[in-house]
Amino acid sequence: MTMNVVDKLIENTIRTKNPSVIGLDPDIGKIPACYKNHAKSNHPFEAVANVIYAFNRDVIDTVADLIPGVKPQMAFYEKYGSYGVAAFEKTVAYAKSKGLIVIEDAKRNDIGNTARAYADGHLGCVELLDGSCAPSFDADFLTVTPFLGSESLHPFIDVCVKNSKGIFVLVKTSNTSSGEIQDVVTSDKMTISQSVAKYVSEQGDTFTGEHGYSAIGAVVGATYPEEAVSLRKLMPKSYFLVPGYGAQGGGAKDITPCFNEDGLGAVVNSSRGILYTHMNNEEREQCTRQEYLLSVKNAAMQMREDIYSALKREYRKMIY
Amino acid sequence: MTMNVVDKLIENTIRTKNPSVIGLDPDIGKIPACYKNHAKSNHPFEAVANVIYAFNRDVIDTVADLIPGVKPQMAFYEKYGSYGVAAFEKTVAYAKSKGLIVIEDAKRNDIGNTARAYADGHLGCVELLDGSCAPSFDADFLTVTPFLGSESLHPFIDVCVKNSKGIFVLVKTSNTSSGEIQDVVTSDKMTISQSVAKYVSEQGDTFTGEHGYSAIGAVVGATYPEEAVSLRKLMPKSYFLVPGYGAQGGGAKDITPCFNEDGLGAVVNSSRGILYTHMNNEEREQCTRQEYLLSVKNAAMQMREDIYSALKREYRKMIY
Repeated sequence: MTMNVVDKLIENTIRTKNPSVIGLDPDIGKIPACYKNHAKSNHPFEAVANVIYAFNRDVIDTVADLIPGVKPQMAFYEKYGSYGVAAFEKTVAYAKSKGLIVIEDAKRNDIGNTARAYADGHLGCVELLDGSCAPSFDADFLTVTPFLGSESLHPFIDVCVKNSKGIFVLVKTSNTSSGEIQDVVTSDKMTISQSVAKYVSEQGDTFTGEHGYSAIGAVVGATYPEEAVSLRKLMPKSYFLVPGYGAQGGGAKDITPCFNEDGLGAVVNSSRGILYTHMNNEEREQCTRQEYLLSVKNAAMQMREDIYSALKREYRKMIY
Repeated sequence: MTMNVVDKLIENTIRTKNPSVIGLDPDIGKIPACYKNHAKSNHPFEAVANVIYAFNRDVIDTVADLIPGVKPQMAFYEKYGSYGVAAFEKTVAYAKSKGLIVIEDAKRNDIGNTARAYADGHLGCVELLDGSCAPSFDADFLTVTPFLGSESLHPFIDVCVKNSKGIFVLVKTSNTSSGEIQDVVTSDKMTISQSVAKYVSEQGDTFTGEHGYSAIGAVVGATYPEEAVSLRKLMPKSYFLVPGYGAQGGGAKDITPCFNEDGLGAVVNSSRGILYTHMNNEEREQCTRQEYLLSVKNAAMQMREDIYSALKREYRKMIY
C-alpha cells in the first residue's frame, strides 16, 4: 500500500483538526472594495483577474493554517477568459506552495478521446512541440461528471493512478433539481446515484492509500443526508467531497452521515458562507483589508468548530 | 417571430448546401510538421498555442466558403492552460470574422449559482470592475450537460433568450457507454435521453426563430440512429448537433433520421475525419502547407457531398 493524494488530504485534515475546505469562488460584485486598487491594467478582464488573484492570495494566507485545502470553482475564473484562467493557475500554484490540497471544481467530461484531453490537461501530462510536461492547472483533485458513462471516466482514473492524483465523480449533487436524473431508479433497483457510487467504489478498490481510502472519490451534497447514508455504505473507502453546507442550507448534522466512524472519509466545502455572507454589501464596500480577512478567519474557525464538534458527538472513535 | 441564432446557422447551411460543421480539435501530435515554425515563443505552452492558432486560421480560411460553422472542442485548448484558452478565444473571433457560426463544445454545467457564471462567461455578459461587457469566448452556441437537472439548465436558457445565443443540451451522446445513464428508463416509461429531450423541446417552444426552429438544441450521436428517430419526434423544432460521423463510425445513412423533411433540423460534426485521418503520420511530417490544406478541403467537400446526397435521397421536400 503506497501513499496516495487522499493520504495527503487526510494528513492535512488531522493536523488542522478540520475536514472542511474553502471554496475560492471569486465574485467581483462581492469582493470587498479595498481590493479594487489591485486592478493595475487597462484591459478590463486583466484588471478583474488581478483583483481576483490579490483577493485569493490574502484569503489563502489567512486560512492556510486552519484548513486542509481549497476548492477553486473554475466557472468564476473562466468568466474572464484567458486572463481569468491565468488567475486560476496562479491561485492553484500559490495554494500548493502553502501546503494546501487543491480540489479543482470544474465538473469536466466528454467522450473518451476528449475526456483523455481533459484528464491530461488538468491532472496528467501534456504533449509539447518537443517532449511533455505537467499541465498548468495541475490541481490535486478534479471534479468529473459521469453523464457519458464509464468510457468517459476511464481516462481520468488512468491519470489518477499514473500521477497520484484524485477525482471526485458527481454522484448526488447538492442542488434542488439533482434528483431529476440522479434519483431515477435503474433496472437493478438502484438510483442512478447509487449505480455511479457502485462504479466509483469498484474503481477505487484497487488503489487505496495508507489510510485505506481511495483517490476515486464522490461528490455527495450535504443537502441530502438520507441519500448520504446509503451512499456511504456503497462507497466505504471512497472520499466524499460534500458541497451544500452553509449558504446552500446544509448544517453540521446533515454532513455527519458522509463521514465514517474514524471521522474521515469526507471533506466539506463552503464558499459563499466563508467569503461573502458574513458581511453585507455596505460592509464590504467600507471595510479595510484587515477587517475583511478577520471576518473570513472567524467564519472559517466557526465552520471548523461546527463540523468538528458535530463529528465528535457522533463518532466516538474519531482519530483526531 | 424574430430571427434567432439558429436562423443564422440555417442561412449558412442553405447558402453552402451543407449541414455539416468541422470540429477544430487541435492535437499537437497530429498537426502537420510544417506548422511547427509558428511556435515563436520560449514558453512551451505559448509555443503550442501559437502553432494551434496558425493551424486553425489556415483550416478556417480553407473551408470558410464550404461550411456553415465550426465546432472547437475546448478540452484541446484548455490542455495548454491560459495560453491554450487564449488560442481558443482568437480562433472563435477569427471564425466569426469569416461569417462562420461557432459552436463551443465545452459540455459545461454546475449548480444554479455556478451555472449562471458559466452561462454569463460563455454566452452572456460579464461584470467588470466598472460596468459589464460580452465575455471573451462569445461563441454562438455552447454544449451543456443536463446531469444536475433543470435548475442547472435555466441560467443557460435565460442567456440564450437575452443575448440571442443557443445551446445544445447533451441528450444522447455518441460514445459506447452513453447508455449506462442515458438509456435508463424513468417512471414515465421514457429513457433519461427522452426525458431530457422532452424538457429541451418544451423550453425551446416559446422562442422559435423565423425558420421555425428553437435555439435550445440537443446533442444526438450519429452512432445511435434508432434513438435518433424517437428523439426527432420528441423534439420536432429543436436543432440537433450530431457528433459521431466519420472517425467515430457513423455514416451518412445514420445521420438522416436526425433531420426533418425540409433537410434542416440538424448539423453534423466531424473533427478527426477532416483534420487527421486522410493523411498518415509520415505524410503529415512531410507535406507542405498547401498539400495539407488541399487534403482538408477535399475531405470537407467529400463530407458535404456524402451527407447532402444522402439527405436528397431521403427527403424529397428538402428546401436547399
